[in-house]
Amino acid sequence: MREVFNQELDTIADRLVEMSRLVTEQISRATRALETNDLELAEQVISADARIDAGQADLDRLSVQVLALQAPVAQDLRVVVSALKMSVAIERMGDLARHIAAQVRIRYPQSAVPEPFREVFSRMGEAAVRIGTAQIQLLDNPGLAAVPMIATIDEQLDALHLQVFTIIGELSSGDLTPSQIADATLVSRYFERFGDQAVNVSHKVEYLLTGSWEPDLSAP
Amino acid sequence: MREVFNQELDTIADRLVEMSRLVTEQISRATRALETNDLELAEQVISADARIDAGQADLDRLSVQVLALQAPVAQDLRVVVSALKMSVAIERMGDLARHIAAQVRIRYPQSAVPEPFREVFSRMGEAAVRIGTAQIQLLDNPGLAAVPMIATIDEQLDALHLQVFTIIGELSSGDLTPSQIADATLVSRYFERFGDQAVNVSHKVEYLLTGSWEPDLSAP
Repeated sequence: MREVFNQELDTIADRLVEMSRLVTEQISRATRALETNDLELAEQVISADARIDAGQADLDRLSVQVLALQAPVAQDLRVVVSALKMSVAIERMGDLARHIAAQVRIRYPQSAVPEPFREVFSRMGEAAVRIGTAQIQLLDNPGLAAVPMIATIDEQLDALHLQVFTIIGELSSGDLTPSQIADATLVSRYFERFGDQAVNVSHKVEYLLTGSWEPDLSAP
Repeated sequence: MREVFNQELDTIADRLVEMSRLVTEQISRATRALETNDLELAEQVISADARIDAGQADLDRLSVQVLALQAPVAQDLRVVVSALKMSVAIERMGDLARHIAAQVRIRYPQSAVPEPFREVFSRMGEAAVRIGTAQIQLLDNPGLAAVPMIATIDEQLDALHLQVFTIIGELSSGDLTPSQIADATLVSRYFERFGDQAVNVSHKVEYLLTGSWEPDLSAP
């Protein structure tokens, strides 16, 4: 019985890593689609989201099955509870990649990235891929060391998000159309939220390892 | 033992209702702060978010305790699993009310709502309060009847969100500053996401009642 149980916990961990790989791949491709105004690539990101949604449903079903059949306790229980929480955050990361790709589709053949935002969005995309990669590492080999790394990349994303508002504040009224400003606001928000969700995942790994909810991450 | 267990499930249900009341009150006050440019009220909404966060932490701890000590099965297990999911969505509704209030604070003494958006944001706020109220009813007296009601209000919020982009698209370049357009985009997004989270909660109630994940809500 115990052997089956450990296999199932392994499967849960594997699925979390797999979902994280998928969303990191999608945010990378969504960024590229945005940078190169590649409609076909954007469509691929939009289609891939269904796989991520299905991954969450499978993972949640498995977690409920483990709770029902094995009644885990202590750290084993925390693995399952944190998986139920993490699956929400990772699925949402997939949605955010899809939203960015959808902006490319909505504006095509025009670019969804007005010139003044090209550099900052490339940097946001690069940071989002780094935070996704850190999340894969964290879930593949859980340890507290990767948690502050994720917090640091999230701070970079927050700073870039603020930079977008600085750029918007410095625009003259005729530089861009109102719709272009709305688009840039949303794209920036999507990247910033992608980072927040990785932070949510990292908090759940902390819970899994320590048993404490939402520990204080505000170390200097 | 059974008696204690049922008490604990009741407590979980009560906490979900209580958190839903809190976030509905906060979105109502955030809307009023936005409409009347009331800084003090906005500050109150911002402060209240800590109570909602604490409510989530307490509820999650209670859910884990029930899993560890009672090993529930069947519908009792679904109550606890759906509570772990719903607490994420309801806590997020509190964040979104706080974000709207924060826009009032950021722009004060100027208004965070440029004139062309006054009416649509009042309607979004009113719809958000209605969806929160429907969520309270759903959780207070779970039954499938309230689920499509929540879906309908969410569609109204989505349509109002699109209307915001129509208004933005019809603005002339000099009508508003770029920062005002970015503000309106975000406020609209926050209201729209508030509705999405209520839909997430209603899906989990469906799961609780039927045992099926994410059932098809796309009835005509």
